[in-house]
Amino acid sequence: MDLASLPGFRDFFPEEAARREYIFRKWRETAERYGFVVYDGPPLETTDLYRRKSGEELQEQLYSFTDKGERDITLRPEMTPSLARMVASRGNSLPKPIKWFSIPQLFRYERQQRGRLREHFQFNCDIVGEASVAADAELVALLVDALRSFGLSEKDFWVRVSDRPLLAALLEALGISGPELQKVVFQAVDKLTREPAEKTRAKMVEGGLSAEQAGRVLALFEGKKLTDIAAEFDASSAVCERVMALQRFFGILDAMGLGAFVEFDLRIVRGLAYYTGIVFEAFDRKGEFRAICGGGRYDNLLKTIGGVDMPALGFGMGDVVLGELLTERKLWPEKLMKGVDVFLVIVEEKLRPQMLSLAHQLRSAGLSVDYGFTEANVGKQFKAATTRDARFAVVMGPDEWKRGAVKLKNLTSREEVEVGVDAIVARLREKPSLQAANV
Amino acid sequence: MDLASLPGFRDFFPEEAARREYIFRKWRETAERYGFVVYDGPPLETTDLYRRKSGEELQEQLYSFTDKGERDITLRPEMTPSLARMVASRGNSLPKPIKWFSIPQLFRYERQQRGRLREHFQFNCDIVGEASVAADAELVALLVDALRSFGLSEKDFWVRVSDRPLLAALLEALGISGPELQKVVFQAVDKLTREPAEKTRAKMVEGGLSAEQAGRVLALFEGKKLTDIAAEFDASSAVCERVMALQRFFGILDAMGLGAFVEFDLRIVRGLAYYTGIVFEAFDRKGEFRAICGGGRYDNLLKTIGGVDMPALGFGMGDVVLGELLTERKLWPEKLMKGVDVFLVIVEEKLRPQMLSLAHQLRSAGLSVDYGFTEANVGKQFKAATTRDARFAVVMGPDEWKRGAVKLKNLTSREEVEVGVDAIVARLREKPSLQAANV
Repeated sequence: MDLASLPGFRDFFPEEAARREYIFRKWRETAERYGFVVYDGPPLETTDLYRRKSGEELQEQLYSFTDKGERDITLRPEMTPSLARMVASRGNSLPKPIKWFSIPQLFRYERQQRGRLREHFQFNCDIVGEASVAADAELVALLVDALRSFGLSEKDFWVRVSDRPLLAALLEALGISGPELQKVVFQAVDKLTREPAEKTRAKMVEGGLSAEQAGRVLALFEGKKLTDIAAEFDASSAVCERVMALQRFFGILDAMGLGAFVEFDLRIVRGLAYYTGIVFEAFDRKGEFRAICGGGRYDNLLKTIGGVDMPALGFGMGDVVLGELLTERKLWPEKLMKGVDVFLVIVEEKLRPQMLSLAHQLRSAGLSVDYGFTEANVGKQFKAATTRDARFAVVMGPDEWKRGAVKLKNLTSREEVEVGVDAIVARLREKPSLQAANV
Repeated sequence: MDLASLPGFRDFFPEEAARREYIFRKWRETAERYGFVVYDGPPLETTDLYRRKSGEELQEQLYSFTDKGERDITLRPEMTPSLARMVASRGNSLPKPIKWFSIPQLFRYERQQRGRLREHFQFNCDIVGEASVAADAELVALLVDALRSFGLSEKDFWVRVSDRPLLAALLEALGISGPELQKVVFQAVDKLTREPAEKTRAKMVEGGLSAEQAGRVLALFEGKKLTDIAAEFDASSAVCERVMALQRFFGILDAMGLGAFVEFDLRIVRGLAYYTGIVFEAFDRKGEFRAICGGGRYDNLLKTIGGVDMPALGFGMGDVVLGELLTERKLWPEKLMKGVDVFLVIVEEKLRPQMLSLAHQLRSAGLSVDYGFTEANVGKQFKAATTRDARFAVVMGPDEWKRGAVKLKNLTSREEVEVGVDAIVARLREKPSLQAANV
């Protein structure tokens, strides 16, 4: 019998589920610290929703099918179209700016490669209704702090930031006008980190640029600073305007104390055609992994998808690359699986009804409690307590019970005290954390 | 442009998402108090997995399709087959008993009716590897406490409990032998609460029972108590054995103090054919809603699906009926949407860098913080603070700032105090809860 999950799909056994929950919790906490509120859309949408975004040319990797009502539907490959649909459907009734986050599971029919999954969870944070770069900076700060919450520092990752309109203005200044020619450049430079510059140059010349233009374009991507660009292109007001916007953006992150995490890098173009402003990607510093996170401003998407004109920006951070990075950097907390607070041990089977009653009292008090389902000697019960990673054992013996007491044993320190049954909840609550604690 | 979600699929705007999170949180907390650990499976499985469970006769409502690799796959309509597959794949390496819970989203292509959804979330709790009725009682106790955690009491709901082998033994004692005849009875009595007894009787006679047998079967379902049954069928050792098991089961729930929530009711047969022991369903007392929850023991399923012989039992509780019940009983907490802890207000735009720095300090200290992205007068900023449901406003004015201080205003009590910037985190942390609190 085949007991495997579908290729590219993960089973989350308790250990993996605990890791997933840890990632989700950190994401959620960071989003909430930034005043973002949670939302969610359906995992199935009409295929048309994705067609509206990308034009007729749909992505190959869609999980699309026809349902029993003859609808052409798709398992969501990304969250932004659902977000755009939802926000547009409420139009102006939502107070702006909207700051929403979600942790959807997303699906892509990727060709099977080692480690390539067909599903992943993605932390999505979006701001809708705010045109100022202050929103772009807020979003990147959130992304930085989300990664920092896992113990990653500026030595581990950085966020490379570029700007679509700046790049367009620069090309314009170089005499490369019109969306077709610019698209040639965007597509060529998107591969700049993955192929030799000569190949990129050839592609651009093939696409219609002059050799001189291609050379100047390549020069743009040789790690120029914003100030260099401003000085070189000071005749272009469009360039100056975007340089100033970017300077404001970086200024905000500096004011927040996050300057060390972000860097201007014109090479970040992002594959998706719909970005209209600042774009960014987070990478590990060593360059060992794919992008940890990517996003940017997409001011036209709500209009395209929902007919409502609202500026918007967002990012998506997947759980897979992040998880690999945490593993490589040994940043997973030592103990993610929570053990139970208390394991109840009975010295005589006769005491079972009393044990069940106590179990329910302790659970009602908010403690996590376990016990053996069937008669077993004390040694076996203690073994079960260890298997369940219990912090405390409560040992119920006939003599103590007559005195209205039980033995409370700390399973880490092995200390043991006799406690009155009435006092036990208070005693255990003194240290309600799941960490080992002295009685 | 069509801005609706697919029929039967819900959008979770922040308000609905907050309700969903509330339900999930209560479910999770209760499961953890009972020592259950979280797991999850993939939302897509091979259709074969569901075929293995139900035999060739697959449910009509499956969301099945063929993927690009020509696989026949299905969006999970229930969780148990995935659980069985996962547990079987790890076989004996998992310590027993396994106590696992999950909150999957499930999919069924239901015919469209008012309020009938095609997706819902379901709290699934299962115990694997324990044959004793102690496990059945533990599971029902968990289900009761999960519902109680929402403020539902024994006046609001009850759990009706029956037993498949008891029913089989009773039919046997009435001379109704063999799976075919018994299946006729199971199917007939499953509808007993929804159709007149005469119709049920006719069906049974049609199915091959004698008129006398049909009459005695109907008499069984007239609210007989366990003790009545034991007395009436004391010649059948199979009946006596199951009566004793059920008495043990109810005894455990009594010992836990939950006796008032459970009741023996032979009419609970449960549609699914795979149950092998105690079965149960939770209903609202007024009988206004469909079943809130259902489950039971399915000792053969792991073998059928995964080739591993392990006793198992579980229940599923959906979010939809539960949500309707909470609405009807007015049991939703008044305030589910969390506002932010602090909204930062600047009296002069010049102070923006200082505000951004303070925002980041407060966020780093774990507080949720919001502020306006663009220049606005103080009145507008306070209005935004109210919109964001902030507990406190921190007002940064040039004079206070020179003194190293800010004004801290409690937006509920309207009290205002001046606080040193260094002390502000400590001051706000005194009452870190999201409830309104005095400064």
